[in-house]
Amino acid sequence: MSTETAQIQTYLAEQAALIEKELAGSLPSDWKVPAPLREAMMYSLLAGGKRLRPVMVLEAAKALGGDEKAALPVALAVEMIHTYSLIHDDLPAMDNDDYRRGKLTNHKVYGEAMAILAGDALLTHAFYSIVQAYRTHGVSAESVADIVEELSRLAGAHGMVGGQAADMEGEQGVTSLEQLEYIHYHKTSDLIVFSLKAGGRIASASKEQLAALERFGSNLGLAFQIQDDILDLVGDEQKLGKPVQSDVKQQKVTYPFFIGIEASQAKVEELTRQAKQAIIEASFPHPERLLQIADFLMRRDH
Amino acid sequence: MSTETAQIQTYLAEQAALIEKELAGSLPSDWKVPAPLREAMMYSLLAGGKRLRPVMVLEAAKALGGDEKAALPVALAVEMIHTYSLIHDDLPAMDNDDYRRGKLTNHKVYGEAMAILAGDALLTHAFYSIVQAYRTHGVSAESVADIVEELSRLAGAHGMVGGQAADMEGEQGVTSLEQLEYIHYHKTSDLIVFSLKAGGRIASASKEQLAALERFGSNLGLAFQIQDDILDLVGDEQKLGKPVQSDVKQQKVTYPFFIGIEASQAKVEELTRQAKQAIIEASFPHPERLLQIADFLMRRDH
Repeated sequence: MSTETAQIQTYLAEQAALIEKELAGSLPSDWKVPAPLREAMMYSLLAGGKRLRPVMVLEAAKALGGDEKAALPVALAVEMIHTYSLIHDDLPAMDNDDYRRGKLTNHKVYGEAMAILAGDALLTHAFYSIVQAYRTHGVSAESVADIVEELSRLAGAHGMVGGQAADMEGEQGVTSLEQLEYIHYHKTSDLIVFSLKAGGRIASASKEQLAALERFGSNLGLAFQIQDDILDLVGDEQKLGKPVQSDVKQQKVTYPFFIGIEASQAKVEELTRQAKQAIIEASFPHPERLLQIADFLMRRDH
Repeated sequence: MSTETAQIQTYLAEQAALIEKELAGSLPSDWKVPAPLREAMMYSLLAGGKRLRPVMVLEAAKALGGDEKAALPVALAVEMIHTYSLIHDDLPAMDNDDYRRGKLTNHKVYGEAMAILAGDALLTHAFYSIVQAYRTHGVSAESVADIVEELSRLAGAHGMVGGQAADMEGEQGVTSLEQLEYIHYHKTSDLIVFSLKAGGRIASASKEQLAALERFGSNLGLAFQIQDDILDLVGDEQKLGKPVQSDVKQQKVTYPFFIGIEASQAKVEELTRQAKQAIIEASFPHPERLLQIADFLMRRDH
């Protein structure tokens, strides 16, 4: 591992720990919430992971010289959205998964009904969290309205949920690379694009800078998903925390299925290059960390 | 039926038709949404019903001399929330219902996975709709932030979803009237309170007027739910569109179970009186319609 890789890895782990701590306090303690619902929500919200999306919110704000603290409520919100989508995706009616990141899935612990409700509550609470950026962190109501609108678009029927619906249909057979890219863009890229642009909005990004963050996120999201597909084929089970070739066993059509592993690897590199180029061209005051994260994601082995 | 009852009934039917028409156009037609997801969302959103919650949004705004048009996006939003909650409640893991209002439930038509996603997408889209009040209807970004915050609180873990979670637990046995009231307040009143206060906010209600709308909605919501419990015991199957005593057959604990039918009827009347009193005392410029609706709901037979 190069020194730079080790440094960014340490940095990302520190950021993930900061986010984890804030997530733990994100549901007001004086709210009367039935105990099993609160437990089910926090079980999945605090289940670890890379915290990639909230990190993107914070790093986009910082790349523009913005205030990390002001961006924090939106960072928590996007992790709530990501977590709810995992809880619902794991349900028996959807992917029917018993484990995620080595832990039992939400419905295996709390039952299906509570898992559905925990997902609904996390999705709803994300919007509460966003408004706190205005209520207590000095972000303008106009910016918060823009961010709520964009999240509801990119996480909803037109975005992430649309991607999930297309993926469900696709189980009857994804027949083209275009169809697979539609699924990847909406299931993965949309929420990453939201994260980057929301961080940008909080730091008063210009239109050009928002467009650059969109290009960065869109390319990086697709690269991330193709990299996942590759790692599922050739990765190290221990590092991945799940059996390799599980996509193959589930007869899931992936990127390498269409163009092979080598061309898929080249595609990841090309998308990462394009992502970085967008940031470089838009003259951010502090672009370094975003560029390092892009490189790091391309080289990751789990 | 009295002339007044007939008049308010006609009026409410007209309002419901207006809302139905607006709901039909509420998902932007240029959005790329997978066809089965769009269909599943619209199937339940356009399945009829009293449209009580969106009517409350509009009537609260009008009682204050506010603009009905400006309140419309929020009226649509609350119906999206109500609809998503019905879709998820009907799922096999929850109430496992095959029919609602004489039509097959969402998962019976589109399958469980798509029903879960349609619910998620409607919940998400509600927040998109609210922002349109600011984007295209002249409502301030500050008001929209207040409304988004209140919806996320009253529809989430602390509100409607919390009530649903308590109801699920309660299936192992509701043992006190307090427990039943907690469920009723959160499953039903919270969204009615939200509707009234959001309409009030759009019409620049004072603090006192918002408090009056909250008391009106909270009392009316509980009255509405107790009335439902009574109708389930003694109502007319044809008018209800479902078999009477279905709660008894499902061994659901209801209000009359604790205090009897007559005391329950008296409670509905007392709650309605208190609801109306709140509005009368807060000197609304046009309180008549809200008061008529309260009386109408108390006397309804389905």
